[in-house]
Amino acid sequence: MRIAVLGTGMVGRTLAERLAELGHEVTMGTRDIGQTLIRPLTGDTGSPLFSGWLTQVPAVRLALLGDAAAESELIVNATSGGGTLSALGEVGEPNLAGKVLLDIANPLDFTNGFPPSLTVCNTDSLGEQVQRAFPSARVVKSLNTMNADLMARPWLIGAGEHSVFVCGDDPDAKSVVVALLGNLGHRDIIDLGGISSARGTEMFLALWTRTMGALGTAAFNVKVVR
Amino acid sequence: MRIAVLGTGMVGRTLAERLAELGHEVTMGTRDIGQTLIRPLTGDTGSPLFSGWLTQVPAVRLALLGDAAAESELIVNATSGGGTLSALGEVGEPNLAGKVLLDIANPLDFTNGFPPSLTVCNTDSLGEQVQRAFPSARVVKSLNTMNADLMARPWLIGAGEHSVFVCGDDPDAKSVVVALLGNLGHRDIIDLGGISSARGTEMFLALWTRTMGALGTAAFNVKVVR
Repeated sequence: MRIAVLGTGMVGRTLAERLAELGHEVTMGTRDIGQTLIRPLTGDTGSPLFSGWLTQVPAVRLALLGDAAAESELIVNATSGGGTLSALGEVGEPNLAGKVLLDIANPLDFTNGFPPSLTVCNTDSLGEQVQRAFPSARVVKSLNTMNADLMARPWLIGAGEHSVFVCGDDPDAKSVVVALLGNLGHRDIIDLGGISSARGTEMFLALWTRTMGALGTAAFNVKVVR
Repeated sequence: MRIAVLGTGMVGRTLAERLAELGHEVTMGTRDIGQTLIRPLTGDTGSPLFSGWLTQVPAVRLALLGDAAAESELIVNATSGGGTLSALGEVGEPNLAGKVLLDIANPLDFTNGFPPSLTVCNTDSLGEQVQRAFPSARVVKSLNTMNADLMARPWLIGAGEHSVFVCGDDPDAKSVVVALLGNLGHRDIIDLGGISSARGTEMFLALWTRTMGALGTAAFNVKVVR
């Protein structure tokens, strides 16, 4: 499948690399190609640059946001929650129309440090905001309840025996995402219903961040035991 | 241990019965003993009355809220989230002072139907509201992330292999609750830190309610796989 991954941070890179490994045609989308290529991958002194990483994953291309989305069947929003609406605005509704938009972002607000609060919750969600702002996109919220390594390689903990949720108003778009999740190795996929259910998976981040603090690792996920 | 269970609804009854079965001295607290005794247990025609249930659990006593709390070492808040602050106000701070107050309530708002929203979240929680309103109580938030049957009998699903969280500012009070959780059969007990962590476990209800809707059962819980 032709997949655009919007966002060139750690989450975007992890997913792009893994999707390419699975044989998908992956184009990463950024606002500024030149700036992205010379950006260090981490804040550490001597960190490799994005360009160095890109050289090692020749199957992944880099393009402007709109171009990446235009040529793809499925678009992954891996931008930060705070930057999501602006980045998708730059993509433009015509490039999103009719496309499956897999939204994996969380509306985290680190203004007051860790653990973060949410910029939207309870009676609304980022997933709903995206669907309202781009009504012709087929938004599916998923994967936002675990860290990037586990999104891409669920077997890294508990032999892959943990759960992932999908929310969205378009059943066909959800089927496409469910198939992709299975392709990534996810086995327990729970359909929570419409996009308003994204409130549940985004609000779970309030528990996720504190559990990460308690365990001292992000390498965990929840299994819905029943 | 002498335990007061405040609240005579399904959650309170399930826990009271189980705690008595474990050998604890359990007193249920209510605002009005006479009204509670003649209240039907469910909304169904022909439902048994509370008095009938109480006859079957002779080890459980019924008392006024303040009396139940006064004579107990540990107090379980099993009132509804919306009624918690008012019920504890009726108990009175002197009856709560120095006591372990295990708060298992959730601030659910069913005004707009199912799934409920929360009356407080994100930058505050019911657990914190309780601790602020009754500073001399030693509030521990726990058990609020699963239904009453699983609080009381965790082995009913997944051979008991699922998780429960504790949050509270008083380490000794948390130790008392952790021991009680072990007594009930809980094995994976995760200490999230101070009472502000209750934001995480209460906000999880937004995911819990939707998962219940998707699965069609409340007989589930999450296991933190790591």
